Amino acid sequence: MPPVNPVVDTADVTALLERGRTMSTPVLRTAVRRLAPPMDTVAAYHFGWIDAHGRPADGDSGKAVRPALALLSAEAAGAAPEVGIPGAVAVELVHNFSLLHDDLMDGDEQRRHRDTVWKVHGPAQAILVGDALFALANELLLELGTVDAGRATRRLITASRKLIDGQAQDISYEHRERVTVEECLEMEGNKTGALLACACSIGAVLGGADDRVADTLEAYGHHLGLAFQAVDDLLGIWGDPEATGKQTWSDLRQRKKSLPVVAALAAGGPASRRLGELLTADAKNPDLDSFSEEEFATRAALIEEAGGREWTSEEARRQHAVAIEALHRVDMPERVRAQLTALADFVVVRKR
Amino acid sequence: MPPVNPVVDTADVTALLERGRTMSTPVLRTAVRRLAPPMDTVAAYHFGWIDAHGRPADGDSGKAVRPALALLSAEAAGAAPEVGIPGAVAVELVHNFSLLHDDLMDGDEQRRHRDTVWKVHGPAQAILVGDALFALANELLLELGTVDAGRATRRLITASRKLIDGQAQDISYEHRERVTVEECLEMEGNKTGALLACACSIGAVLGGADDRVADTLEAYGHHLGLAFQAVDDLLGIWGDPEATGKQTWSDLRQRKKSLPVVAALAAGGPASRRLGELLTADAKNPDLDSFSEEEFATRAALIEEAGGREWTSEEARRQHAVAIEALHRVDMPERVRAQLTALADFVVVRKR
Repeated sequence: MPPVNPVVDTADVTALLERGRTMSTPVLRTAVRRLAPPMDTVAAYHFGWIDAHGRPADGDSGKAVRPALALLSAEAAGAAPEVGIPGAVAVELVHNFSLLHDDLMDGDEQRRHRDTVWKVHGPAQAILVGDALFALANELLLELGTVDAGRATRRLITASRKLIDGQAQDISYEHRERVTVEECLEMEGNKTGALLACACSIGAVLGGADDRVADTLEAYGHHLGLAFQAVDDLLGIWGDPEATGKQTWSDLRQRKKSLPVVAALAAGGPASRRLGELLTADAKNPDLDSFSEEEFATRAALIEEAGGREWTSEEARRQHAVAIEALHRVDMPERVRAQLTALADFVVVRKR
Repeated sequence: MPPVNPVVDTADVTALLERGRTMSTPVLRTAVRRLAPPMDTVAAYHFGWIDAHGRPADGDSGKAVRPALALLSAEAAGAAPEVGIPGAVAVELVHNFSLLHDDLMDGDEQRRHRDTVWKVHGPAQAILVGDALFALANELLLELGTVDAGRATRRLITASRKLIDGQAQDISYEHRERVTVEECLEMEGNKTGALLACACSIGAVLGGADDRVADTLEAYGHHLGLAFQAVDDLLGIWGDPEATGKQTWSDLRQRKKSLPVVAALAAGGPASRRLGELLTADAKNPDLDSFSEEEFATRAALIEEAGGREWTSEEARRQHAVAIEALHRVDMPERVRAQLTALADFVVVRKR
């Protein structure tokens, strides 16, 4: 059962994502050229603009949901989409700062169908370029020099701190035997909700929206982020590696205490208990890499049997509904509301 | 020969450093408590407030030159020293963000007579806590909510970007056979000069100083930073491990192309050529850890014989003079000018 009724106009969403990418990428590329060598090259590799040998490439640079949201955010406040561009770029820089550091901390070797930066250019470059992108995000906003840019920067920094808190929680949970559903939702709210929330308010703030409007747009983005992450957690176990660019059973290989897992463990019943026994044994096993596909498939089947998959689909639907509800508490052009709704629908039905 | 004539009143400098520490540490500790566990604990270990087992400690938390400068910076603009406190804390947070990341990138195992964070708490915590301190620095300033706080944040971000550029240059130089004196000075200006410059302007900016005054105070701080780094480079080779808390021949072990090394290589003559031959051979040796103390002593003696030690002492003196000259281009209370002068004197005669 799909998590929402399909009201998504795919062509419309594709156009919105494309607009976000087209309008923000030139500014992003110019900003990245400010970095001292070799960080500029390493960043260009991370974004898929060049390959590992430095040759121009047209690689996958992500779904670009955040830039699309930032431009719509400006329009929600009655401003031109262009007003949201510095916000779109700043949010994308912070997002990619976190990817560079998280991939290193998590030991992830693949991202967007390519080797991760630390694999190709070494851990030091992953750390440095992450740091540089984070600084650059704030620099781009602050050099606008307006009071609204200061407000936008403050929101971005708050979101960045939550992002870091969320990654800290995510790592600490991997070493714990039990994580509650509430703890998992809190972690995901920090790790994914906070920056999506910021993407949804930053354009409006740059366009002069007051804090009430900005906070309500953040509520939309926060719940959209939780829906997004619930879907990510489903894809992290049952996603098609061809579509996601990740390994099969990716989150199980990494012992992620993601929503389907914690919901299954909390559910009770025979499948839940059997899953708990297996994961407790796995926790003592230093090397899950030696597991066969079948061993991961067994765990995935138990998660599903215990209801973890269904609960997570429902959770995506619940968060989607709360997000849409928030949209209706802000006075904005109907076209913009419809487009923000379409993006929310897309987030919960996507396959990658 | 000491690099400056001793006009330092040690008691006065000690009191200034102590005032900076006393006034900024409570705010720093409160700020660090905002971090999600276990980052708060890891940061407390880094700052020396607890030991590796979590027991309260009174460890070395650094010389605290930057907080002392930030408070004097406020006074240079005619404001109370208290006005500089958020700036002092923000600069100290950025400084410690860079230490956490640099120690990991450089593989440094000791800092301030203790094991570094990545050694005790692992690389992921060093990355995360560094990220969190960097974000916190900007958060503390921006939540002041004033236009001057926005200006101060922008200067801090610019300094942070230079800091990151400098670390990138430092790392890339380690893999190059030859680095010019100019490249080394540029790297050190980024890595050390930029944040010291910011410490010297941030209090004044928070106190309402205009950009000309702030820029001139930054010029003082930038040259003070270059003098500081020249002395650091001397201590990195000839420093007393008891005083510095680092290994003997620390910079030589790490193949640092520091000022004494690049100046010696640029000098020409038999000692310079012999040094060049040895370092070229070393560059092909993956493991300098197997070197005896004598092998490092030979290299240090050649650097000295080629004039690298003397040139670096002179450079510290030159930069010190330019810094003092800048101080006289800003209208400020004579007491403050005398104290900034005393701090500059201290920087070039210090043993740690």
